[in-house]
Formats: sequence, C-alpha cells, structure tokens
Amino acid sequence: MYDFAARIFPLFRSLTGPGVRATLAEVSKLLPGLQIQEVPSGTRCFDWTVPDEWSCREAWVEDEKGRRIVDIAEHNLHIVGYSEPVDAWVSRAELEARLHSIPELPDAIPYVTSYYRRTWGFCLQHRRRQDLVGDRFRVRIDSTLAPGHLTYGEIVIPGKSEQELLFSTYVCHPSLANNEISGPTLAIFLARWLSGRDNRYTCRVLFLPETIGAIVYLSQHLDALKRNLVAGFILTCVGDTRAVSLMPSRLGGTLADRAALSVLEQHAPGYMPWSFLKHRGSDERQYCAPGVDLPVVSIMRSRYGTYPEYHTSLDDMNVISPEGLAGSLALHQRAVELLEANQIWQATCLGEPQLSTRNLRESTGGGRSLAASTKLISDVLAMSDSSRDTLALAELLQLPFQKVDACCRLLEGHGLLRPSVPTPM
Amino acid sequence: MYDFAARIFPLFRSLTGPGVRATLAEVSKLLPGLQIQEVPSGTRCFDWTVPDEWSCREAWVEDEKGRRIVDIAEHNLHIVGYSEPVDAWVSRAELEARLHSIPELPDAIPYVTSYYRRTWGFCLQHRRRQDLVGDRFRVRIDSTLAPGHLTYGEIVIPGKSEQELLFSTYVCHPSLANNEISGPTLAIFLARWLSGRDNRYTCRVLFLPETIGAIVYLSQHLDALKRNLVAGFILTCVGDTRAVSLMPSRLGGTLADRAALSVLEQHAPGYMPWSFLKHRGSDERQYCAPGVDLPVVSIMRSRYGTYPEYHTSLDDMNVISPEGLAGSLALHQRAVELLEANQIWQATCLGEPQLSTRNLRESTGGGRSLAASTKLISDVLAMSDSSRDTLALAELLQLPFQKVDACCRLLEGHGLLRPSVPTPM
Amino acid sequence: MYDFAARIFPLFRSLTGPGVRATLAEVSKLLPGLQIQEVPSGTRCFDWTVPDEWSCREAWVEDEKGRRIVDIAEHNLHIVGYSEPVDAWVSRAELEARLHSIPELPDAIPYVTSYYRRTWGFCLQHRRRQDLVGDRFRVRIDSTLAPGHLTYGEIVIPGKSEQELLFSTYVCHPSLANNEISGPTLAIFLARWLSGRDNRYTCRVLFLPETIGAIVYLSQHLDALKRNLVAGFILTCVGDTRAVSLMPSRLGGTLADRAALSVLEQHAPGYMPWSFLKHRGSDERQYCAPGVDLPVVSIMRSRYGTYPEYHTSLDDMNVISPEGLAGSLALHQRAVELLEANQIWQATCLGEPQLSTRNLRESTGGGRSLAASTKLISDVLAMSDSSRDTLALAELLQLPFQKVDACCRLLEGHGLLRPSVPTPM
Repeated sequence: MYDFAARIFPLFRSLTGPGVRATLAEVSKLLPGLQIQEVPSGTRCFDWTVPDEWSCREAWVEDEKGRRIVDIAEHNLHIVGYSEPVDAWVSRAELEARLHSIPELPDAIPYVTSYYRRTWGFCLQHRRRQDLVGDRFRVRIDSTLAPGHLTYGEIVIPGKSEQELLFSTYVCHPSLANNEISGPTLAIFLARWLSGRDNRYTCRVLFLPETIGAIVYLSQHLDALKRNLVAGFILTCVGDTRAVSLMPSRLGGTLADRAALSVLEQHAPGYMPWSFLKHRGSDERQYCAPGVDLPVVSIMRSRYGTYPEYHTSLDDMNVISPEGLAGSLALHQRAVELLEANQIWQATCLGEPQLSTRNLRESTGGGRSLAASTKLISDVLAMSDSSRDTLALAELLQLPFQKVDACCRLLEGHGLLRPSVPTPM
Repeated sequence: MYDFAARIFPLFRSLTGPGVRATLAEVSKLLPGLQIQEVPSGTRCFDWTVPDEWSCREAWVEDEKGRRIVDIAEHNLHIVGYSEPVDAWVSRAELEARLHSIPELPDAIPYVTSYYRRTWGFCLQHRRRQDLVGDRFRVRIDSTLAPGHLTYGEIVIPGKSEQELLFSTYVCHPSLANNEISGPTLAIFLARWLSGRDNRYTCRVLFLPETIGAIVYLSQHLDALKRNLVAGFILTCVGDTRAVSLMPSRLGGTLADRAALSVLEQHAPGYMPWSFLKHRGSDERQYCAPGVDLPVVSIMRSRYGTYPEYHTSLDDMNVISPEGLAGSLALHQRAVELLEANQIWQATCLGEPQLSTRNLRESTGGGRSLAASTKLISDVLAMSDSSRDTLALAELLQLPFQKVDACCRLLEGHGLLRPSVPTPM
Repeated sequence: MYDFAARIFPLFRSLTGPGVRATLAEVSKLLPGLQIQEVPSGTRCFDWTVPDEWSCREAWVEDEKGRRIVDIAEHNLHIVGYSEPVDAWVSRAELEARLHSIPELPDAIPYVTSYYRRTWGFCLQHRRRQDLVGDRFRVRIDSTLAPGHLTYGEIVIPGKSEQELLFSTYVCHPSLANNEISGPTLAIFLARWLSGRDNRYTCRVLFLPETIGAIVYLSQHLDALKRNLVAGFILTCVGDTRAVSLMPSRLGGTLADRAALSVLEQHAPGYMPWSFLKHRGSDERQYCAPGVDLPVVSIMRSRYGTYPEYHTSLDDMNVISPEGLAGSLALHQRAVELLEANQIWQATCLGEPQLSTRNLRESTGGGRSLAASTKLISDVLAMSDSSRDTLALAELLQLPFQKVDACCRLLEGHGLLRPSVPTPM
C-alpha cells in the first residue's frame, strides 16, 4: 500500500484536469474494473456548477537576477490551485499580495486553492519569503482554464443484495499524504479485498474530487443511494499512526455509526470520537446534509485539521506509514465483516426451545448455575424478538460481536433463530 | 410605571364591583382601545357560577367608647372580601371569631376573602388586636351582595397572523402591590409597546379577576385560544427586585416555556425555576388545567407565597420599585422579540450551498480552520432540516438567540434558508 | 401455612406421576374448587413434547455386605429424577459414574434430574460418598417410564371483569422447601383470601410442573392470556426471611412490574431488584419469552441460585418459616389490593373545580399557603388527564399509593374525577 501511495504522491492533482486523470489511471492499474466518468463543465448540480477544467504546465517566479524563487517543477504545492495564466513583471508589493506562507511553520509550503474566483498566486515557505531580494519579479503561469470535464472513478462489486455499502475517497489534492493519497490507497486495497469475497451487500467505491465531486455524484444518484445504501464510509486521513478517530453521521445512530462504534470499541478502544457539529470537514458535509442524510461516517487516523502538518507540504510520505495504512485497512475490513454478518433475529418458537435434546445444554437438570455457553444461548434466544440486530444483542450482553454472531449462527443452524425482515437499516 | 401603580394602588378592588371598574377606567386612560366586558351574575362557567356583585361603602368596628378599632376608610384590607352587611353590637367572643390577624407579623393586616360562602369579618394587625379593650363592640358593614356583573378588560393588538400571544393579569386584589398592581401596570406598558410595533402575532392582553375571571374567559374562548395561542404569559408579582423566577406550564416544553427559559438564561441567569406541581398558585392553574393545557407560563419577580409581605398590607408600594417594574418589562419585551423572530428553518438546497460565490466565506480554499462567521453559517445550514426552530438551533450551538437569528435572516436573504411550515407551536 | 407446607414437604414429586397427584390432592383439600388437568404424554407444546410419566417405587444401593448406602425411603432426593429401572451388580467405577454429590457441601444431597435423556443415577452426601467401601454394589431402581400424563391444577376465582390476575407456582420438586413448597403453600392461602373478596379482576391460580408445565399451559391458553391478563406473579422461593427480591418481566415496565415496585418500595424498601437478563431462572423464562411477553413478575424472598441450601437437601423446613410465608402472603395481598384499586383518572371539568362549595377546601381565600389535604386534592385534579393511573400519580406526588387512591375515590364521589378507559394494561 505504501509503495502505491508513494507512486501517486507526486502527481499534480487538482479539482479537475490531467492530474486527476493520471491518478485514476494509476488506480485503474490495480482496479481494472474502474469506470471513469466525465461530467462537463457548466453542469448544474444542486446549488453548484461544475467549473472549468484547469491545467497548469508551468508556474514560477524569478527575481531580477533570474533566480527562480518558486517553481511547481520543484513542488506542486507552490501554485495556488486554479490560478489563471499570467506572464508579467510585477512589483514587490504586487507580488507580496499574491504570496501565501505560514509564519508559524516557516519551512512549510501551504496548500491554497481558489476554485471559484479567478485569481492567481503562489505558496512558499515563510523562511524563503523572508529572504526575497529585489523590487521587481518575473511571474509566469502557463495555465488553461476552459470548459472541459470533472473526472471521477467508480467501481461496483456486486453482492447478493441490491443493498449497498459505500466507500468514498477523494483525488483532488496535490502532493499531500495523510490528507489525500492515504484515502485512495486504502480504497484500492479495500476494493481488491472486497472483490475476493462473496458479499451479501453490493459494494460501491468512489474516487471523487472533494466537495464538488460528492455534490455531483449525489445530484445524479441520490434516489438510488437513499433506496439502497446500508452504510457508507469516507476514506480520508487514514495513513498515519498517531490516532484512530471517528466522524459520526449528522444525527448519529445509523447502522454505519453503530458498526463503526462497535469495531472501534473492540479494536481501538482509545479512539477519539469527534462531533459532526463541531468537527466535520470532509465529504460528510455533503453525504449527511439535511435532506441527503445518508448513513455515512469516517473512521480516520489523525483527523484533518488536528495534526501540525495538515494542508502543508509537511504532510508528506513521512507522515504516513505501511503500519498506518494497514491498520486502517484492518479496521475497515472488520467493519465490513460486521455489517455482512449483522442481522435482526427472531426466535422461531414461543417459549424457550428444548436445548438439551439438541445438545445445546447439559442433559441433567437441577444444577445450581448455568454454564457460560448455555447462558449465552439462553440470553440470545430470550432477546431475539425482531427488535434487535446482532450489534444490539452484543451491546446488551456486553460481549464481542463475533461471539454473539457465532451463537446466532449456531442457533440458526438448529432452526431456533431466523433472520427477520427487514434487514437492518 | 411606578406612578401609575401608585395611582391604582389605593383603589378598593374585589372580585367584582366598583373597585374593579375604577381600576379598568384607569387602565383605559392609558389604553384607549380597552374593551370592558360584563358577565352577569349566575352565568355558569365550567364548574363555576359567576357570583353576586359586591360593593362595600362602609365597614368599621367601634368599642364601647366609640373608638374606631378598624375602618376600611383607613385601609381597605380591613374587611374580609365579600362580607355581607351587618349592623349590630356583638360580644367580645363573637367579634374575636370574626377577626383575622397574623401573630408572626403583628403589624400586618392580612388579606382574607370569602367569595363563595356568605359571612363577614375583619382583618387587622395582631398588635392592635391584642390591645382590644371592652366586652361589647359596634360592628357596621354597609355592603351589598346582589346580582350584577363580573367585569374584565381586554385589548387586542392585531398582527399579521391570527396566531396569538396572550398576556393575562388580574385586577381583584385591593391594596396589594407586588401581588396585584405590578401585573396590570406591566400589562399596560407592554401593550403600549406592542401597539407601536409591527407584529407578526396578534397580541391579546386580559385584565381579569383571578381564578373566576380566567375560568369565565376560558369557558367562552377556549376553542379560539386552543386554535390560535402560540404562547402566553401571566403577569403577576413583577414589581420587586429581590428575584427573577419562572412558573412553567403544567407539562413544560411549550413554546412559551422554551422562550422564557431562553430569555432568562441569557438575561437573568440566576433566575429561580419553580415547579408547576409544587408551586403553582395563580391563573396557570386554569390556563394549564388538564384539557385546557394552553402554552402559558409566568416570568415573575418574587413569586406569590415566597416573600414575607405576601397577602398582607406589608405588600405595599415599598415592596415594588421603578427598577423592578422596568426589569420585568424588559424581560417580557425580550420574550416577545424572541417569539416574533423564532422560526423553523429548512435549508433550500441539497448538499452544502456554494458559499464563496455569495461572499459568505473566503474565496480561497485550503485554509487550516474556518473563520467563526463561516462556521456559524455552515452549522446553521447543516442543522436546518425542518425539525428545529431558531430557539433549538441556538440551544444546539450554545449561542445567544439573537446571533443565530441574525445568521438565519442573512441566509434567508440569500435564498439558502426558508421558513418551514408549520410555525412552531 | 407452615403446617400445610410441612405436610406436603415429604411427598415424592417429580415432573409427572403420583407425587404430583398426591400434592394436588392435598391442595384440593384446602381449595375444593381446584380443577385437575391431565395432558397426555406425547402432546406437542410449542417446541416441546410432554414426556412419559415416571413413577419410582423403590431405589437403593447396597454394598457387598448388604448395607444400604442410599435409599429413597430415607430421602427422596437420593434418586436422579426420571431414572430408568435398573437391577444389577455394578463395579465401583460404574457406580461412581452414576453418583452426584457436592464436595463443598459434604452433608447435602444434591437435586438432580434427567427428564429428557434416559439414564439413571443417585445423589448423596459427599461425606457419605467418601466413606464408600468395597468394589461391587447392588443397584436397584424399581421405576416405570411409560406414556401417561402431565398433571396440573387450576382454580379460577371470578371477578367483575374478564380481565385477569395470574398466580403461577410449581409442584415438581421433591422435598425442597423454599424452592418448591413455599410456592404452592402461598398460592393456596392467597387463593383462599381472594375467594373471600369481591374482586374486580378474575383471578387464576396455577399449580404446574416448572418449565414444561408453563410451556404446556401457554401453548393451550396463550391467546386468552394475551387478551385478558393484566398482571401475573410467579410464586417461588417465598418462604425464608433472609431477603425480599423482585424478578421483573423481560422488558420491564408492565403493570405487574409497576405494582410490584410500588409495593416493595413501600413495604420492603431494602428489597433486591434482580435483572431478567442476568438472573432469570424460573417460569418467567416462559411467561416472558419473545412473542409470549405476558406481564409477569416474581416477588420472592431469597431467589433461587442465591442461597447456600438451594437445590440440595439442606433446603428443608428449617429454611422456611411461618414469618417468611406470612410476609410473602402480605406482600402479594398488597399487590392485589393495589391492582384492584388502580385506575386511570380523568378530571371531569375544564379548569379547576370549585372546591370550597363542596367543603373540599377552606371557604376563606387569601391564605398564605394551602393545607396539605387541599394541596393533595388540587394536585390530583391537576394531573388527572387520562394519561396517568393511580400508581403514576402516587409516583409523581411521591406519596403512598393508598393516600392517593383515597383522594381519587373522594373526588370520584364528588363527581370531579371519573375512571378513564382503557383500564391500564
């Protein structure tokens, strides 16, 4: 996973344009079934309009002595995303008004975009900015902003049911590691793992530009998602090892929330539970917006906005690690396994069934207490009244999901429990 | 306000009769639109019957030496309200059985009535009672108890909607300040302020005798009130400065409760929250009775029953003050403003709207955190799903109502929020 | 009660057979109306089949010297319930494999059964087992296992309504005192007391073998019970004085739960509240199973499984006492009285009624506080809105049920409250 991440790290992504296409081409090599979709500039999507496509071939600033001060050939964060073309000499004051740097992080190049207002600018290390000499500067941006397309990738892994699990990640940030390439990297390996399984749920994996991509996708597929989506996960910030954290859905309590909570409480008990209201910041803003309200959460490592390297050139390949990516993959696999196994159960007989004749309990009576296995069987039967799924049973019994699931499957095999319609939503 | 209160303080009010009419005449001078209603004695109202009208011209007790011991010419609390006429010499024992005083408050004349059982009696300072000398006393009460009318006043200040705010106060206690005249005084000045505003809600202000007046009014207008009333306030005990307190509705949680709680938490955070079950005592007993259940609360100063001067001659003009009355007026004005502004909101687009093109956020992206104003806009949009009014949004966001209201109005102006039907009840 | 308990203590009960019939014959002497029901072996009941009937005339083990080691003539717990016939010499190892004893309680004979798997065995004191000498043993069990009947007793005490109270106890354990005969003993004396009352509810008392008896009864009467049962009580472990405890229904909150809680909080405030999920063990497992879900609880003394003598010969007549039985009878009588009195109430007039003309409050007004009796009347009226029964009123007002019931009856007599349909379920 880390090697793939390193391969796509340097690609010059933006909201649209050749960087996105190059990234999706790399994704396709590992996911041959990936469908590439192109949505024309100008398409209306909810409150938004797909913007012009941007490509930028060259962008640099030189001083009067011809020394390159910044150059996207050196680092693709040096340009403000969606900068319009310019080729001019500017005064020092004019240049300063176009520069972005972070005094507190003097060695970091900040990440800045201006997708919806035409402008241009450069980003650089504050330390380098302080070393600027001279009064006139040559600025050159060889970019194109013109009608084109917004590009995204989608792969569907069919399951037995039309009901779906969704995994959505984004491919619009240039060289940023935890807050970008960790997401598509995880999405690819999760999709490959899902393809090798015999799934109950159909699984959909999306590689979109953030915000506008989710808006575009939702505006064209909302009815289907509302009909079929059982649980969804936004894959972002999944590469480092400093934290495990959870962004819940807007109102909480969806199956995605419940599954994520169960997985994290068992496998990452020290995880950080964020607040949708206070801390949301990625595509949950769209998937969980009022009226959209899909059951979508994010299981993250260090959340966007919380780690010092966030949205700067310091969020590089050193921030993420093979361990970080593998741990995130494992958590998402556990969530899938749990969702695949989860079921509302109904006891098939009235009264307790006769366990001893099925060798589900000792045949002699009069004991002074029940064996733990008998107690679990008895408890699962006593609480399987079509109102609880396996997740709820596990929570009620304060036992790991897997242990309760195994008991339910045993009882299903004996004809003592049956799945209850509807499948939990 | 205090001057008006002082003017009506000495009037000899009772449940019915000339004192009520004189008081309403004074009210009319400041509220020319006041309608005076007269309901005949004998009218059945729910479980009650409008009693005979009482007027009392003279009432005193003299000892054998002709010394006046008590005389309503001196203080109108000296007579038990609704005393029947008497003109006789009585023994000391007979007189004692007719006297009311408070040993713990030897300088206070208690307030006593006997509206529904024919009797007579006098109230006096316990200290004076202990000084009684002689064995025979001349008692004279020149009163009339005869079919007449129950009188009340009503003024309606039309608003854009048929939905109503109600303010109800009482005009049946003789010279009592905090627990009587503070109420009608506040009602007048609130009504005058309301008349000068362009209100969304129609406002109704009632000046009734307590209990029977509310019963009479409800028995004749319950359907209309149940249809139109959005929130109501009983104005009583609003003149002193020792406390701010709240009597909730019977079951709590009505819009009146929520508005009052918001105002008090912001403007009088040390207010005392009383219990309807334990502490009710004024017309909330009728407005909130089972089956009536109107959304009515009381924002009070020192509640009836809780301050030492209550229901005695010590509840005089020294207990209330211009500051006390003005502060109560301000709290009720804030409650009206809040109710007038409060609205259930619905975001108009699916997904987040594009804020930067409307100059509702900075146009450059990639910032490491949101500006507070952008965060508020984003939060209001994220939570406006037709389930919350401005009050609920303010509570959720832990911000003052006014700040959230201003944000909602800004977004409404941009077409991003719209009021949602129904108007909150 | 204790004398009756002592009389049935030695009877050799099992799930079926002559011991059950002998016990029911003793019950009939005190409850002449008892109906004896016989259900044939092989009858399908939910997931179960009524087993063959068992009778055991003789059962003993002798050593080579002809010394009786165990003999049911000495104590009927010595035989594993439902042992099949045997008459053979066995080796020491063979015998040991058939013996049951409790090392931690070396003087106790354990209670062991094998109703649904054919086997045989003996139970004995561990101390005696350790003293076994010799290598060969004569084993003789003269028993019959053959198609016959499951026997149970039922008595119905008609009330004014078809709605019912249920009391269910079991008659299948041999000589065990607290965990057996205390139950039928209480059931008899409760039934006799109920027969002497003029009841609103029809009362049904069942004497069943545990588990299979409840299964049989439910399989044949579930619809009627679901239609008519208001509250039910399992009578078990009601004879000692070491504790008072409560087993709630599966989901809690039924009228039976609420009545039991009220009685226990008033009359046994130190009672132990058990958990259905964690601690259930008697016929609540059937009466409260998913889909059955009848409102059934158990008010117990020391719960099965919690006291040292449980399921051994030490649970004898010394464990229970006249005081223990009488106290349990009193608690169940209080529960019946409460259920008989409990009622949802509705105030008959809108607004407060006029209390003074009915002498329900003092006739003079203006008092500085309400008398306690007036306050109670006022509170009951204010909260009687068809949503609360007497139990809920008592809980809300934090007063004993009887005091609130008396007030409701007084107000009903004055026409100010009326019972509200439906009767609380």
